[in-house]
Amino acid sequence: MSTYHPLSEAQAIEYARRIPQLFQPGSDLASQEIGDGNLNLVFRITEAATGKSIILKQALPYAKVVGESWPLTLDRARIESEALIIEEGLVPELVPHVYAYDADLALTVMEDLSDHVIMRRGLIEGNQYPLFAEHIGRFLAHTLFFTSDLGKNQQEKKIQLGRFINPELCKITEDLIFDDPYRDAETNNIEATIRDAAEQLWADKELLLEVAILRNKFLTQAQALLHGDLHTGSIFIKPDSTKVIDPEFAYYGPMGFDIGAVLANLLLNFAAQEGWSKDEESRSAYRAYLTQTIKDVWTNFEENFRALWNENGVDRVFTAPGFQDYYMTNLLRDTVGFAGAKMVRRVVGLAHVADIDKIEDVAARERAQRMALTIGTASIRANRQVTTIDELIAIATRAAERGFVL
Amino acid sequence: MSTYHPLSEAQAIEYARRIPQLFQPGSDLASQEIGDGNLNLVFRITEAATGKSIILKQALPYAKVVGESWPLTLDRARIESEALIIEEGLVPELVPHVYAYDADLALTVMEDLSDHVIMRRGLIEGNQYPLFAEHIGRFLAHTLFFTSDLGKNQQEKKIQLGRFINPELCKITEDLIFDDPYRDAETNNIEATIRDAAEQLWADKELLLEVAILRNKFLTQAQALLHGDLHTGSIFIKPDSTKVIDPEFAYYGPMGFDIGAVLANLLLNFAAQEGWSKDEESRSAYRAYLTQTIKDVWTNFEENFRALWNENGVDRVFTAPGFQDYYMTNLLRDTVGFAGAKMVRRVVGLAHVADIDKIEDVAARERAQRMALTIGTASIRANRQVTTIDELIAIATRAAERGFVL
Repeated sequence: MSTYHPLSEAQAIEYARRIPQLFQPGSDLASQEIGDGNLNLVFRITEAATGKSIILKQALPYAKVVGESWPLTLDRARIESEALIIEEGLVPELVPHVYAYDADLALTVMEDLSDHVIMRRGLIEGNQYPLFAEHIGRFLAHTLFFTSDLGKNQQEKKIQLGRFINPELCKITEDLIFDDPYRDAETNNIEATIRDAAEQLWADKELLLEVAILRNKFLTQAQALLHGDLHTGSIFIKPDSTKVIDPEFAYYGPMGFDIGAVLANLLLNFAAQEGWSKDEESRSAYRAYLTQTIKDVWTNFEENFRALWNENGVDRVFTAPGFQDYYMTNLLRDTVGFAGAKMVRRVVGLAHVADIDKIEDVAARERAQRMALTIGTASIRANRQVTTIDELIAIATRAAERGFVL
Repeated sequence: MSTYHPLSEAQAIEYARRIPQLFQPGSDLASQEIGDGNLNLVFRITEAATGKSIILKQALPYAKVVGESWPLTLDRARIESEALIIEEGLVPELVPHVYAYDADLALTVMEDLSDHVIMRRGLIEGNQYPLFAEHIGRFLAHTLFFTSDLGKNQQEKKIQLGRFINPELCKITEDLIFDDPYRDAETNNIEATIRDAAEQLWADKELLLEVAILRNKFLTQAQALLHGDLHTGSIFIKPDSTKVIDPEFAYYGPMGFDIGAVLANLLLNFAAQEGWSKDEESRSAYRAYLTQTIKDVWTNFEENFRALWNENGVDRVFTAPGFQDYYMTNLLRDTVGFAGAKMVRRVVGLAHVADIDKIEDVAARERAQRMALTIGTASIRANRQVTTIDELIAIATRAAERGFVL
């Protein structure tokens, strides 16, 4: 098994059996491939006698998206595994445990989180997660602070950066988030009902300038080791636990890109309430829950981050009066800008979100898409001016109150 | 010779003899070690019969500065050699040709530039170099543009960045430029006559905030492959030729750091005219030459850079209206800020410049130091507001006209 080949279910069992101290010798193991087959094989191995289970995640040497297939580096399995291990060192309670990593097979053996649900599904079902904001705020604060020049030895940070140069997966982001949605690209996935709104995007010079500025930050600003794809589909959740998974897009980039991804996906669900809420009252209530969560995510993040900085800052010069405030304001601005970019691409770009796409009522889906675009573009336009998280919430609330004509 | 050892003059000859197509077989070669012995051995090998000569530059495994010695990676020889080769690919007329690089010996064999002088010495001697601004503007524009996300394949840029992670030499800059001068550090080298001015620096909150912002950019902004140490001691010059040498500090950082280094060293010489000019008239004349050169360096850089961008830009999104202007304004601001930081450290930090330190008249030297500090701190304070290069020149001119009380 020392050269790469995609595992069969039987081979996955054999592999799992060889990991020390996991299963009883000779015990009865069942294997099930539960991945969506786009990028990875995902095997759940269960021990019949104990009910104990683990996940084997194996990278495939190609990506399948909307029928297309293109080759993709297996090195992303190393990046994912190393990022998970770094995250586990910082916030062990918020990521799956990694039992083993096999470079040859591009295979990570990790904790099974089947008792959690994917957060995107949880939100679509209308669930509320009162602990989420504290959890994800802590995740963001610890992973971003301790991998940055604020909280990590600055020479070690440079060397770590070198292990997370991730050209192929960054390229996906650069194309699908920071380019294609802003032109009439073949990869885009635009419903005929909102074609006019997409065309307005492409002609909006003020917006295109802000997108260029955000793209440039994504390309050049090596602030911290990002998760790189922190949407609600990368979060496993249950009422008392939050687990961030799938950091294969990890690289050194602008912190606001991760924070913005979380907020964008909450706002996409906010817009999607056009289709999911039973009535106006429950819609308002769920939206209020989401905006409160957005506020709490930022507040928890900021409080944690400032506290870590004050207690564990490694850089004397960065204690200059005013610098922390300056830094946090810029972080908020980046967050709002990247949140906007993440929303726009989920409406007109290649990969949409189930929150909106699964709305069957065509008119409600169109309203949700236009609202998401309105919030997204307004966030992008506002990004270099905002000074509080309330301004992002106001953008969303206004879009919901006044309609969503782009 | 396959393991590292410092070469003797005789060994340097033997080494040179083995390089193909350089010298006649069996010809008479002379070797002279001409380095200052701080960081490197530098051998000039001359062929008696033809007068042909080359340079062998070998990194030493330690650095000696002001009597101290600390270990230093030999990998800097690889970085220097690879950076020179990249620069030669872009502006062959502006760097020494590299004949060979030997990783084991940390040795670069390159063109001898003995017909040039070190520019710092040329300026101290009062020479003028009318072609310099065009040359260095072109060097900066080409090397910065074509290694950045503006002009280089963006995935290849990431991989190239990985080859120029340079923790040890970056650490020297981080300490000596962006930290020690702004506190009462042991490494500082402050003349008693200006102690009061240094103490004012350390208490200047507005200044310390700007220094923190600049330091953060140096740590995180991976815009382009910098030379990293582009002062007038890294430039060989004669009236019709400019050659940039010694890129061992090369790494991916903010472009303004290289441009600012050039301008800072012209401004240090501007201040040093307190000691060198014979009379007020010649002082004014030479300062006018220097400020004109500063303006021309920036203008040449900007014109070249914009033209390269318009003709060779690789990024569609960056053609958004207004983005190029936004980018150039930020570049100018960074340039002014880094120029200021480079000046301050040359007055109160560890390593000074001969332009000022060689002034024998104590009062004139003090005036030069105070003027350099005045220009440097004013540049740092102004950096996030400036919109034209004339503002930097006005800072210098004002300091010369009104005196230089800090």
